[in-house]
Amino acid sequence: MSAPTPDPAHSFSLKVPDGDNRERRVCDTCGFIDYVNPRIVVGAVVALGDHGPPDGILLCRRAIEPRRGFWTIPAGYLEQHESPEAGARREALEEAEAEIELTGLLGVYSVPRISQVQLIYRARLRTPHFGAGEESLDVRAFRWSEIPWDALAFPSVHWALGHYATIRDAEHFPPFANPA
Amino acid sequence: MSAPTPDPAHSFSLKVPDGDNRERRVCDTCGFIDYVNPRIVVGAVVALGDHGPPDGILLCRRAIEPRRGFWTIPAGYLEQHESPEAGARREALEEAEAEIELTGLLGVYSVPRISQVQLIYRARLRTPHFGAGEESLDVRAFRWSEIPWDALAFPSVHWALGHYATIRDAEHFPPFANPA
Repeated sequence: MSAPTPDPAHSFSLKVPDGDNRERRVCDTCGFIDYVNPRIVVGAVVALGDHGPPDGILLCRRAIEPRRGFWTIPAGYLEQHESPEAGARREALEEAEAEIELTGLLGVYSVPRISQVQLIYRARLRTPHFGAGEESLDVRAFRWSEIPWDALAFPSVHWALGHYATIRDAEHFPPFANPA
Repeated sequence: MSAPTPDPAHSFSLKVPDGDNRERRVCDTCGFIDYVNPRIVVGAVVALGDHGPPDGILLCRRAIEPRRGFWTIPAGYLEQHESPEAGARREALEEAEAEIELTGLLGVYSVPRISQVQLIYRARLRTPHFGAGEESLDVRAFRWSEIPWDALAFPSVHWALGHYATIRDAEHFPPFANPA
């Protein structure tokens, strides 16, 4: 989930490009238009399924900032030319060495302050294996009663787990949005 | 839905920035990292509700490329610091002068080839007014049987209308994805 910011030494001015209706950052030197778009985060609440206790959930302890040392669901930025579903599966593989099967779109959360939209899926393990990927200090299967609620990394991890609890066994359900 | 591409005269090389694991375009002159992320399109299938025939749907005839002259649902790029719901309402206002109320997430479609993720909502008119915004040649209410199927702008407009037909009166439903 690393996202270095553009080099602040680069000199941009705010201008409205032709055919546009909003100010964008335009390079003073070469005219490059720095279109900035909201970023998509994809992730999953991963149940152990047949590979652990029926209320078991996979969580990753973050090895990177922000919120290093705190627990999160496997999630990260969607890459170019990737579908959200493929991105959620890739993040589970990268961060938790877990092969997962998606079983529904759990939530569409947005964090307008940082221009982020999160697509979080319900999922289950396809194989028993999981482990700490490069961006994780640890990956563990928690029974529901053992989830470290006070050490979760982000509000949306709370939201996703809370919403998951209400539709855990539902066949079909509409996705949740940010809590009111 | 305009999205000019970066100036091709700008000279970039592909490099893996520190703390990253993928090649990104880095400016040869100033080191600016051009992080490119998938773009989010937000839009809505807008029913006339109490303001027209029960099967009436609002469509916009595009005034801009691509697909100028073809019909589409109100949709466009999500802006920075905007929630998807707010973006879908803004696009309906900009393109169809329509105040809409969202009544569910209809579809999450993706077009990996062009790195696009579409969040399309089910919606209805909140007031009787609609009209052609700046990016529309015309905005019309079509009865279902009159929808110009052969003159729709994009495959995902077909998908969204087809999916809408199957859940039109459903209270809750899971969002659809790309057809198989």
